[in-house]
Amino acid sequence: MTGPQSAPQGIVAGSIPLFAGHPAPELLPVRGIRHALAAWDGRLPLRAFNYGDEQGDPQLLDFLLARLNAAEQLGIGRENLMIVPGSAGGLAMITRLLTKAGDTVLVDAPSYRDALHIFRDQGLALRALPIDDEGPRLDALAAELERLAAKQMPPRFYYVVPNFQNPSGITVSEARRRAIIELSNRYDFCIVEDDVYSDLRFADWAPPSFYALAGGENVLRLGSFSKTLAPGLRLGWLLGGSRQIAEFVKSGVLRMGGGANPFNAALVAEYCQSGAWQAHVDWLLGQYRARRDVALTALAASMPGGLSWTRPAGGYFIWLRLPDAVDVDELERRAQAQQVYFANGRGFFPEPAKGAHFLRLSYSYLPPDDLRTGIAILGSLIAQLAA
Amino acid sequence: MTGPQSAPQGIVAGSIPLFAGHPAPELLPVRGIRHALAAWDGRLPLRAFNYGDEQGDPQLLDFLLARLNAAEQLGIGRENLMIVPGSAGGLAMITRLLTKAGDTVLVDAPSYRDALHIFRDQGLALRALPIDDEGPRLDALAAELERLAAKQMPPRFYYVVPNFQNPSGITVSEARRRAIIELSNRYDFCIVEDDVYSDLRFADWAPPSFYALAGGENVLRLGSFSKTLAPGLRLGWLLGGSRQIAEFVKSGVLRMGGGANPFNAALVAEYCQSGAWQAHVDWLLGQYRARRDVALTALAASMPGGLSWTRPAGGYFIWLRLPDAVDVDELERRAQAQQVYFANGRGFFPEPAKGAHFLRLSYSYLPPDDLRTGIAILGSLIAQLAA
Repeated sequence: MTGPQSAPQGIVAGSIPLFAGHPAPELLPVRGIRHALAAWDGRLPLRAFNYGDEQGDPQLLDFLLARLNAAEQLGIGRENLMIVPGSAGGLAMITRLLTKAGDTVLVDAPSYRDALHIFRDQGLALRALPIDDEGPRLDALAAELERLAAKQMPPRFYYVVPNFQNPSGITVSEARRRAIIELSNRYDFCIVEDDVYSDLRFADWAPPSFYALAGGENVLRLGSFSKTLAPGLRLGWLLGGSRQIAEFVKSGVLRMGGGANPFNAALVAEYCQSGAWQAHVDWLLGQYRARRDVALTALAASMPGGLSWTRPAGGYFIWLRLPDAVDVDELERRAQAQQVYFANGRGFFPEPAKGAHFLRLSYSYLPPDDLRTGIAILGSLIAQLAA
Repeated sequence: MTGPQSAPQGIVAGSIPLFAGHPAPELLPVRGIRHALAAWDGRLPLRAFNYGDEQGDPQLLDFLLARLNAAEQLGIGRENLMIVPGSAGGLAMITRLLTKAGDTVLVDAPSYRDALHIFRDQGLALRALPIDDEGPRLDALAAELERLAAKQMPPRFYYVVPNFQNPSGITVSEARRRAIIELSNRYDFCIVEDDVYSDLRFADWAPPSFYALAGGENVLRLGSFSKTLAPGLRLGWLLGGSRQIAEFVKSGVLRMGGGANPFNAALVAEYCQSGAWQAHVDWLLGQYRARRDVALTALAASMPGGLSWTRPAGGYFIWLRLPDAVDVDELERRAQAQQVYFANGRGFFPEPAKGAHFLRLSYSYLPPDDLRTGIAILGSLIAQLAA
């Protein structure tokens, strides 16, 4: 049973929000959290209520440590892990503590729009690397690093969503990851790996993380409960070298506030330790895979010639390249007139003009019928515009 | 019923932590939150689980708006208010978005240690204003502003804990507030008013806030549920001019994460709307007043001559000035040998040496017997050292 619902922020009631990178309401584990709360109720732990350990809830840290080591044989210890208030909170912390205004960071083109926004808020200079279907192009990366070295403006870090990227759905290949790590050692920059979709992998195999491939050296890896549990709990985790994690843990905002969301972290520890989280993730995988398949089938059925799109092996997003004759702004205006909203490609590029023929569709939020309807409407609009 | 308890972060088991600016465990409304969760259980609102409105939970905003307007006749609207993840999260956001490394901010001497830490993390230059029992000295403020103007380094803001300051317990007088606001207009800097203790006022009267006195112009005022409900929920609020609030609301970290702690905010909205919060605050006032009285009585009974201390009209803290012959570091070593821990004055000054004869006691965390015992031990140690 849930209370009266309103559309989440930014979603027009009655519309088809193909842009929404939210979990679908019907996929949120409201009942599971209710069970955890009920189980918790007789023994509400005091640690949930007061200022917490700056590193994060001890029981949640233990759970995550065991899970990460078991799933990926990382061999990490407590000193490599901390809880963060969502990957957004983690990325904002990394940005605040590792950079200052005027510093340079490397990002993909396209890259995650809201991350670019955080970097811009900090006054950072963004250098964009074009991507292909294996991730950022190495020739572009090497050339950019040379240019920056010549100007004595070494990048502070390279920001990457390694698996099922937001917005493109692309996964960086293992060879590409290894080559990027080599370059990061040669040019001494950090890799910030925003790996919030890796628990939603439909394929049997995925490349090891940058963190694993680099042996934990000079890589910061963010994970999140937002995609596999509930964004409203604002919980994620950060893996890194022990010295770097210790520096983050002793930062002012954590000293003042006492660790990331102690109440929610203690609740989620209860939920995870009961086995409920893993069961929910297993169920979610089937749900999201089915939605991806619906979206890909609808695209094949509805789209005219001259387009291409990605086929993500996990995550939330499909990336469309429009025919050269079709400008995404014009398509957006016509789609909105029919109540169909997608994410305009321009927002994902440091130079927006490069996104003029791209758009992002999300299959995470909409039920299958709406996905089909929305994609069919887009298909006819594109056919009209391309004619 | 609560689960097994461990001492909060930084507190040595079996010690007398006179330093701890935490709510006492027995004063946390564990039962009240349990009731709110139970009331919520049949109708867990979906808005608690997904990405939320960047401005914050709508019901909590409405509750706070009505409360602030009723209590202080502020005449503010929705556009003046946002929810933040605790005052720490709010202060970190303000710092990140209003300053860059190398900028100058004005602080009191002493000032809140963890706020100084946040400013240092950002690479800010701190200018310290000595305080007397009405707040920062105006001659020092005027002289500092002239110096900075001459160097063309205008301060970005003045940071102040206006009521029952951490660490001194002092409240800035109304005359002082008005004079500071005049100077802020003349020299065009913002006032950041970290007003987290004002709900714990023992006296009948308090000066109007900087925000109220300035008519909401160029003042940012933080409030918090940490002192009057539970720090572990990480919830506070920020009052400001509508343009400034709108800029914060559209910042990257909120776009990415969807507003401050939607789950907790929806839960606390339920708790507040039931009237439980106000009842809890009323009860807390008596509890904390009694602890303050115990501490002041114990100080009068236990301290040798040559010391002075503040008599706070609210909040958590008493500030002691030691005799010139007694160095706080030496006192700290001896006290710790007897398991008594206080907050060394040095941490509260941008120039630590200025705190060499000061210490902060907190009466919020300890039960009366421990307060008396701890203060008696300190009294004999100081008498020995002063002899």
